[in-house]
Amino acid sequence: MAVYTDITDAELEAFLADFDLGEPLSCKGIAEGVENSNFLVETSAGRFILTIYERRVREAELPFFLGLMQWLARHGFPCAEPMAGRDGRLYREIRGKPAALVGFMNGLSVRRPTAAHCREAGQGMAWLHEAAQGFPIRRFNDLGQSSWSPLFSRLGADADALKPGLAAVIGRDLESLARDWPRGLPGGVVHADLFPDNVFFQGGRFTAAIDFYFACDDFLAYDIAVGLNAWCFEADGSFNVTCARAFVSGYESRRPLQPAERAALPILAWGAAMRFFLTRLDAWGSTPQGALVRPKDPLEYERKLAVHRAGLQLFAAAP
Amino acid sequence: MAVYTDITDAELEAFLADFDLGEPLSCKGIAEGVENSNFLVETSAGRFILTIYERRVREAELPFFLGLMQWLARHGFPCAEPMAGRDGRLYREIRGKPAALVGFMNGLSVRRPTAAHCREAGQGMAWLHEAAQGFPIRRFNDLGQSSWSPLFSRLGADADALKPGLAAVIGRDLESLARDWPRGLPGGVVHADLFPDNVFFQGGRFTAAIDFYFACDDFLAYDIAVGLNAWCFEADGSFNVTCARAFVSGYESRRPLQPAERAALPILAWGAAMRFFLTRLDAWGSTPQGALVRPKDPLEYERKLAVHRAGLQLFAAAP
Repeated sequence: MAVYTDITDAELEAFLADFDLGEPLSCKGIAEGVENSNFLVETSAGRFILTIYERRVREAELPFFLGLMQWLARHGFPCAEPMAGRDGRLYREIRGKPAALVGFMNGLSVRRPTAAHCREAGQGMAWLHEAAQGFPIRRFNDLGQSSWSPLFSRLGADADALKPGLAAVIGRDLESLARDWPRGLPGGVVHADLFPDNVFFQGGRFTAAIDFYFACDDFLAYDIAVGLNAWCFEADGSFNVTCARAFVSGYESRRPLQPAERAALPILAWGAAMRFFLTRLDAWGSTPQGALVRPKDPLEYERKLAVHRAGLQLFAAAP
Repeated sequence: MAVYTDITDAELEAFLADFDLGEPLSCKGIAEGVENSNFLVETSAGRFILTIYERRVREAELPFFLGLMQWLARHGFPCAEPMAGRDGRLYREIRGKPAALVGFMNGLSVRRPTAAHCREAGQGMAWLHEAAQGFPIRRFNDLGQSSWSPLFSRLGADADALKPGLAAVIGRDLESLARDWPRGLPGGVVHADLFPDNVFFQGGRFTAAIDFYFACDDFLAYDIAVGLNAWCFEADGSFNVTCARAFVSGYESRRPLQPAERAALPILAWGAAMRFFLTRLDAWGSTPQGALVRPKDPLEYERKLAVHRAGLQLFAAAP
């Protein structure tokens, strides 16, 4: 949660003057997104989220992220649609930082997903993959498999500080992942961060996905692998295979997987766990004591890595 | 800004089950109020602010605060009305903390009030004072004049740490304030914290007051004195007498002041500045380095004290 940039009423009015969305009626800084400032703004034309991009999101990448959201919304997928200003642009500046206005999406995220939520989330993910087809801009996954060894090369001491001996274990994981990483699976635009807090539900049904700021091109099944890590582990660290099967089954209700994709899910899930372990380890090691933002616990993903290392049994063996 | 308690979708549903307000449609933690957690909740029945009381607001005082808001709303004053649950109660518990649901108020607070805003705010304050007449619960102002010397008795070192020699100056101020503090002015319920961020405007007109958690019984003119400090100083520390006259004139358009109240405004404003100086000094001295909440600058009110010490000329001398 974060509101880094506090905007004044005058700045909001000046910003909205570039749109045909009427007068501001209310504006609340909201605790959503960890790396941007977000405001829930109501005007006479409706409700919107105003996002001021603070750090991670580079301005050069906004045409991809905002263009993707616009593409998805216009192809029927329930995500916030960026509002174009009178000049046609999807973002402009507030206090020298890029800022965009997107439509408000109803729904609540779930804290403890059930198998039914997982099925809905999987189906929503396949919907996203379908709706993104044809989106013309490409974005390399700079947190994909090829990035992990270079990233870890400067994090070995942090890993051993987290847990003695961990650096060697991670090093062997990275070798296995590099050796066995699949090739040639169907690719496309993936969300790459579809955690439960980025999915909204109403009455148990998937109503929206938010926060597309890690979206990129990768194997579509890699997105499922991120989802299995994010949705299908219990608080005690154990893997919930019922939830996992529900997630995959929900996905396949819209887009059946090829045999090679199904076969690759265990190693993709191992790799996806590595991606979140490494970025959390990186943030954990570089966050000063007493900082305003508490980093997420890298040990959560260290435990998930151990589950994947032992070998996931996702689907029942053939009889 | 603060969201200290993060509630889950399940906790929100359980909370709303005690009301006749329909299903939750969305819930956003908002950056409003420094001592409570606030959420903007939409249900099929409308929009509400859910407040979880974290620290300062004692549960025993909620009947006063929430009862006052209910009283004001039902007497036509634009403030958030607390929603009664099916059991008729205005608050219940979330995670062992008191929590209340109040109506959502449209409007934007202003960062740099103009004289026109000051006039509207003054008029809104008089409206509040009128609407509160007859409210049956009393609450002593535990931050009123009699509290300042006892509070300062343990803050002398902090004052000198802020500015060498300041403790002696404040001590003399407190003697003057105790000696010359007015008696017998018209009293009633005052907001006692009607700063610009607690007032909403739309199209330049006062639309609502929020955050009644310092409201209490005191001289009505003391509320004006708080307002003069909060609304009528420039960023450079100088007193804007045009804004001050507009504030008082707006107030008097609804409730003309008695001569004794007008005469007392300079010392009341000096005392109101002392109240905010002392509580900010207290928070400043007791906040650990690197804490999540940055204390407000006590020097802002030290400078206002100096202006009041020199003697406010609020109104033109008689010709």
